[in-house]
Amino acid sequence: MSSAAVESLLADFKSLKTDLFHKDFLLTWEHPLDEIKAILTLAEALKTLHRDGISYRAFESGLAISIFRDNSTRTRFSFAAAASALGFTLSELDEEKSQIAHGETVRETANMISFMAEVIGIRDDMYLGAGNAYMREVGEALTEGTQQGVLHRRPSIVNLQCDVDHPTQALADLAWLKKHFGGLDKLKGKKIAMTWAYSPSYGKPLSVPQGIIGLMTRFGMDVSLAHPEGYGLIPEVVDIARKNAAETGGKFEVVNSMEDAFKGAHIVYPKSWAPYQVMQRRTELLKVSDKDGLKALEKECLANNAKFKSWECDRAKMNLTHDKSALYMHCLPADITDVSCKEGEVSAEVFEQYRIPTYNEASYKPFVISALMFLTRLRDPAAKLEQVVRRAKSLSL
Amino acid sequence: MSSAAVESLLADFKSLKTDLFHKDFLLTWEHPLDEIKAILTLAEALKTLHRDGISYRAFESGLAISIFRDNSTRTRFSFAAAASALGFTLSELDEEKSQIAHGETVRETANMISFMAEVIGIRDDMYLGAGNAYMREVGEALTEGTQQGVLHRRPSIVNLQCDVDHPTQALADLAWLKKHFGGLDKLKGKKIAMTWAYSPSYGKPLSVPQGIIGLMTRFGMDVSLAHPEGYGLIPEVVDIARKNAAETGGKFEVVNSMEDAFKGAHIVYPKSWAPYQVMQRRTELLKVSDKDGLKALEKECLANNAKFKSWECDRAKMNLTHDKSALYMHCLPADITDVSCKEGEVSAEVFEQYRIPTYNEASYKPFVISALMFLTRLRDPAAKLEQVVRRAKSLSL
Amino acid sequence: MSSAAVESLLADFKSLKTDLFHKDFLLTWEHPLDEIKAILTLAEALKTLHRDGISYRAFESGLAISIFRDNSTRTRFSFAAAASALGFTLSELDEEKSQIAHGETVRETANMISFMAEVIGIRDDMYLGAGNAYMREVGEALTEGTQQGVLHRRPSIVNLQCDVDHPTQALADLAWLKKHFGGLDKLKGKKIAMTWAYSPSYGKPLSVPQGIIGLMTRFGMDVSLAHPEGYGLIPEVVDIARKNAAETGGKFEVVNSMEDAFKGAHIVYPKSWAPYQVMQRRTELLKVSDKDGLKALEKECLANNAKFKSWECDRAKMNLTHDKSALYMHCLPADITDVSCKEGEVSAEVFEQYRIPTYNEASYKPFVISALMFLTRLRDPAAKLEQVVRRAKSLSL
Repeated sequence: MSSAAVESLLADFKSLKTDLFHKDFLLTWEHPLDEIKAILTLAEALKTLHRDGISYRAFESGLAISIFRDNSTRTRFSFAAAASALGFTLSELDEEKSQIAHGETVRETANMISFMAEVIGIRDDMYLGAGNAYMREVGEALTEGTQQGVLHRRPSIVNLQCDVDHPTQALADLAWLKKHFGGLDKLKGKKIAMTWAYSPSYGKPLSVPQGIIGLMTRFGMDVSLAHPEGYGLIPEVVDIARKNAAETGGKFEVVNSMEDAFKGAHIVYPKSWAPYQVMQRRTELLKVSDKDGLKALEKECLANNAKFKSWECDRAKMNLTHDKSALYMHCLPADITDVSCKEGEVSAEVFEQYRIPTYNEASYKPFVISALMFLTRLRDPAAKLEQVVRRAKSLSL
Repeated sequence: MSSAAVESLLADFKSLKTDLFHKDFLLTWEHPLDEIKAILTLAEALKTLHRDGISYRAFESGLAISIFRDNSTRTRFSFAAAASALGFTLSELDEEKSQIAHGETVRETANMISFMAEVIGIRDDMYLGAGNAYMREVGEALTEGTQQGVLHRRPSIVNLQCDVDHPTQALADLAWLKKHFGGLDKLKGKKIAMTWAYSPSYGKPLSVPQGIIGLMTRFGMDVSLAHPEGYGLIPEVVDIARKNAAETGGKFEVVNSMEDAFKGAHIVYPKSWAPYQVMQRRTELLKVSDKDGLKALEKECLANNAKFKSWECDRAKMNLTHDKSALYMHCLPADITDVSCKEGEVSAEVFEQYRIPTYNEASYKPFVISALMFLTRLRDPAAKLEQVVRRAKSLSL
Repeated sequence: MSSAAVESLLADFKSLKTDLFHKDFLLTWEHPLDEIKAILTLAEALKTLHRDGISYRAFESGLAISIFRDNSTRTRFSFAAAASALGFTLSELDEEKSQIAHGETVRETANMISFMAEVIGIRDDMYLGAGNAYMREVGEALTEGTQQGVLHRRPSIVNLQCDVDHPTQALADLAWLKKHFGGLDKLKGKKIAMTWAYSPSYGKPLSVPQGIIGLMTRFGMDVSLAHPEGYGLIPEVVDIARKNAAETGGKFEVVNSMEDAFKGAHIVYPKSWAPYQVMQRRTELLKVSDKDGLKALEKECLANNAKFKSWECDRAKMNLTHDKSALYMHCLPADITDVSCKEGEVSAEVFEQYRIPTYNEASYKPFVISALMFLTRLRDPAAKLEQVVRRAKSLSL
């Protein structure tokens, strides 16, 4: 019987102050700790309700628009699932089918699609310096449209991955850690190794590792960021992580050895990404559509990557972790040696051991996005949650 | 508090007779004036309800199918928004993914997709003489299917732009004028300049200017259609406009000077379109996929267009209008000089002055389409609207 | 007044035992006769409710995911309609837009899209030996995900056409025959000619004829499968048909003459398909993307097909049937001589005579899929149906 669990989550949720009504959610570190906790608590409450077959639909209609400027499976379906759960109609903006190419400006399109929009989810992670900026440009247009009376309500933008952060991923990861370790307070002092890993591809976004170091350092964790020299993240985000750790009594270090990061770690998150400088060069080449330049850059990077094939999460490295049994995490899909590629981020044996846990990790994303929709679109989310819980209780009596 | 406004709109709506149940909406001039007024009144009522956060959902399920044979952003999202608001599930017929290419006839497909369809929105504006004819062919197939008992109910077709009319645009434009000037009766005697404007593209449909002259001439307005020689509209539509004006005590003229049309105008609508004769030639070339012919035609037309670069809506021409402050309108996106192109339909300064009003103009479309769905799918739309208003009132007490 | 009809269907439905809750529906012959009868009865009840404007929506939210690995119009819209009617949000997995190409395994993707999924409809009919196997692979992954607690509920897979069966088509066909002849018991002893027909294309799936012989032989019918030598179906399915006929006192024969099959037939189903052996060769060529090989195979097959142009359903052959007036069936779209091709499966005159009946045949598919969703997602479908009927009755009083 889940009723006690939901009641307890409801009580927790009511104790946490949030100020997200008709706001955007772009970077986790722009939101106070209480809001982060509220999102996690609400996500868990909604997940429990869904498990018990209890609908938390809160709207009769309204559009949830998604704009995917890069491929996506799990985030796309998580957003669709959350929209369905809340009662919104999913509407994807396919830029190829629209008239955007006809020279229409972002601020115009933002208003044109939003007359009955409630939420706009955006993925834009290809161009360094552009994705997050694009979301803010859309947001400013929506604010203007609302102030001018064009839009009846300010739709909320949810960052579904940009060049800086991947907040729904990082929050889902944190929700999973909270569940796995039995509470956010249990994370204090736990060591998490966010490390680069070898992959036979290049140009993967930096937003996942940035999201992880930007968020996990707020809970007193011992965050070790590891990567080969030259594979650094955006310096401003690294600074935020350092500051967070200092403020919460946690630790933050940057090392150039996967082994060092793994030593004594309770959690490991080995994942490939492109070096910051390479992404900067790539962004310039993409802007001018320099195909030869892009090919040359890819060749150079793959050759450089190949020097670090030893950065694979294998049994030997796992044995360096706390009790030789750190929790392995990945945002999926992982490059698995001998499964999805010849040499990759993780050995087949380690991945298979943690395959189901990575599915559990992913399972929080639809509910994190549901929580963000719930918090940004309802004036009194606590009252609504209470109503849902009370109704379910009365039906089950 | 909007309650008084909605009550008044409800009373107005109840006084207007409509006969749209299970019918199509293809051309505004096929519908009596009372029906046009009812659509505008209902659209405004639904817009007010949405502003106040009151759902006007009227169905538990059912498909709203859209068929876009040309690109679209605002109409696509307006249709999606209206479907969501009414409670319909949006389903787009992507002709590339379907088996239509396998030689399936229109009448068969029309029935196959319609077993649970309520509304079918169609955009087909590329081929002169084809778009409206296609909608009627679909409609005949649906009528046959209903009469033969194949379909339980006749779905309604809503014209989302064809070669002849763009009724949801023209109605949204009229709703905006009604709002802006404070009532339909206030439009009597007002001069509107529907004029061609220069654009560095060619082949734009004629349906917007045709829709405007076909509708605005029914309200006693002074409609001035202006275009360079050789840029005429479909003659039959021009005749309808002339007849409408005569019947309502309004005026209708065709002039070959943007300045003449602007003189004393209360409203200006400068917008590019392709000459009727060019569209006819283009249609023939498209039918046989004559790429060389199309290229040659484009070159010829662009060269011809270039003779009329002075047909730009700039400050000097705006100063010719009534009190130098006519309302500028555009269906968007506009070709804005120095913004979206080097030389275009409107100067950046004039456009920027009226940018927000054009957004307001566009904001009526989702509610016009909502009204068309409401009127075509509900046997007693007045009773339903009354129910929605009463329920909202009881909840707010 | 339909109330009596629905009451009678409700009573019938309650008398039939089903065990489909949270199960898949892949092949009709894997399900006991009572379950097949229950699906038909429920489909008819839901169709009657829809005709009378009564909603049978049963869910507030949840995803109905479709995966189309081949083109589709009527099945795509039938699935969308059923999802809408039940209250599910439609979400299509477009494999091109997803990260599946990045080496992600089926079992991972199956779980990633399913956290809030209720039904997954799959069409995969291109590769012999692959489509049904793919569905089972997805199903195993979902079962594992559910057992491991990753998924809250096991989503149900509905086969929307594979290499072996096309169960929603065969069930819709059977529902139509039940209606046309006045009951399933009336089908006993009726002769149905499932015959190959000439088409100017090649490579059409075998699943429709296989679905028909696998299902119709379970109702004591006299099933005659006719095709030119070398155009055999999958031997295992032919064996199942033979066994079914023996068990129900029906007949099953394979002949090499359209005329023989038509003789005395009450129903004819002339439809082209590729020979089993050709599909096997084609599958191998598709696997290695051997374009030259595929072209050569197509040429060879079309040449071979051309020997059998006399396999057209024309008036002369129809005159061989029972009372010269067998019911003509087709899954649509048909290759109609002089309409959709020069020489095809059926003469224009015969097709036109039966055009509306083929539409009626197709009209059952959205309700068959609705019934499958109803039965696989509701623990007590009979109670729910009763609730829907009672509510409708109380509203109409």
